[in-house]
Amino acid sequence: MTAQEKLKKQNSKLKFICVGLDSDLNKIPVSLKSHDNPLLEFNKKIIEATSDLAAAYKFNLAFYEKEGLKGIEILYESIQFIPDDVLIIGDGKRGDIGNTSQKYAEMLYDEFKFDSATLNPYMGKDSLDPFLAYKSKLNFILTLTSNPGSNDFEKVKLADNSFLYQEVIKKIKLWNVNNNCGLVFGATKKEELLSDIKLFGDLPVLLPGVGAQGGSIEDVVNIFKQNGSSEFLINISRGIIYRSSEEDFADQARVELEAMNEIIASIMSN
Amino acid sequence: MTAQEKLKKQNSKLKFICVGLDSDLNKIPVSLKSHDNPLLEFNKKIIEATSDLAAAYKFNLAFYEKEGLKGIEILYESIQFIPDDVLIIGDGKRGDIGNTSQKYAEMLYDEFKFDSATLNPYMGKDSLDPFLAYKSKLNFILTLTSNPGSNDFEKVKLADNSFLYQEVIKKIKLWNVNNNCGLVFGATKKEELLSDIKLFGDLPVLLPGVGAQGGSIEDVVNIFKQNGSSEFLINISRGIIYRSSEEDFADQARVELEAMNEIIASIMSN
Repeated sequence: MTAQEKLKKQNSKLKFICVGLDSDLNKIPVSLKSHDNPLLEFNKKIIEATSDLAAAYKFNLAFYEKEGLKGIEILYESIQFIPDDVLIIGDGKRGDIGNTSQKYAEMLYDEFKFDSATLNPYMGKDSLDPFLAYKSKLNFILTLTSNPGSNDFEKVKLADNSFLYQEVIKKIKLWNVNNNCGLVFGATKKEELLSDIKLFGDLPVLLPGVGAQGGSIEDVVNIFKQNGSSEFLINISRGIIYRSSEEDFADQARVELEAMNEIIASIMSN
Repeated sequence: MTAQEKLKKQNSKLKFICVGLDSDLNKIPVSLKSHDNPLLEFNKKIIEATSDLAAAYKFNLAFYEKEGLKGIEILYESIQFIPDDVLIIGDGKRGDIGNTSQKYAEMLYDEFKFDSATLNPYMGKDSLDPFLAYKSKLNFILTLTSNPGSNDFEKVKLADNSFLYQEVIKKIKLWNVNNNCGLVFGATKKEELLSDIKLFGDLPVLLPGVGAQGGSIEDVVNIFKQNGSSEFLINISRGIIYRSSEEDFADQARVELEAMNEIIASIMSN
């Protein structure tokens, strides 16, 4: 299945939550510490408990790279637990000159076999091209991010009175000739989401920032529903995977994800 | 030694070249292919042949990550060959929300023990803060890059008629409270370098783009000399490490670096 097919399939079953595997040795339940490979066991248990309810999993590469060789091994092995029809996102926000982005694309798409990656647009089109050449993958490109620093440059005013992130959205639409581009848009930016969603066209949207960062699932889903628009994924990391710090962490992750899916289903079917 | 001390020491000895280790199995000499670990042997030989002449080494992380676990091992081991007073740059152009950038900073500065890293400013100040908290490291932040795509966003005109990359430079100067920030500025952008160098203040500058990408060492050095300014590093990757595709690749890398150092010394001492 292509990344596009996986996302369409999950969204058509009213699954919109992407589980963010920001797995951190300092935050996983103490009960796992005696395990041979606590982080791998944590990921395995979370994925097994949630994979029939999740639309996607997002691996935040920083958390694995930080653990050195061991972390990279855990990344390879964790990916294997995810069912074939669920989207797998490599979240590394890469972007570099062409011959370097080519290597990152090969790393993410050929070596790890992610379906999708997050990319940073700062360096412009030729820094994204090697990723966009993979037609059956989905490239989520940063536009307006969920963090306070998004005001520094993403929301800088351009000469034509638009914001930089709006210019990024416009360019992504032009560059989407292989129908394999998407946007990253912060779920904390409700006002901008409301006013800008018309700009998105049919680009799929990945929305981080719900939960620990303050965004609301209801707001996001209502806005997408009212707009009658395209595919989207709401990423939740800490709110699901660290819902409980006890031995029942995987069951509690499932309970939380189930509750979120119900909220979304009730809005979407109204 | 701190990163700042290393750079100052090398520059004071008229060493300004950063050797870019974009080491690629498809490009290293065929004679190495029979070796147990061709990429590691390639890096070892290049470093041994050049480390008394180089101001810094830059590891382009994409090239190592692309090789999976083996590549990460090679990265750890290659770093060990570099003398203590030569700057080691981890070139990954990272940048993410705070808790994620924190992990990247730990990966680069604690786990691999790089002296320096390249960072992407798109997501703003809080995406850089975890790196800027390391006072004895040097954070080279992208401003105007060497590639054609720099026209897409970096050179977009802002409402105040400046370019985005100039706004980035201004902000970096404000954020440099720990004296551990530097700029990445493309050596291919001669005109902009000439007109903008006054904006840099005493921020150290890393200049990629000489050689394969078309920038000129002489132009860059003349501009820095005329400005009487601060520390800088000219990165050369392919032009040094792939100077010869024969068994003499390491000797030829040294010959090339020696010639570059002589050109620079003759300009700087004129």
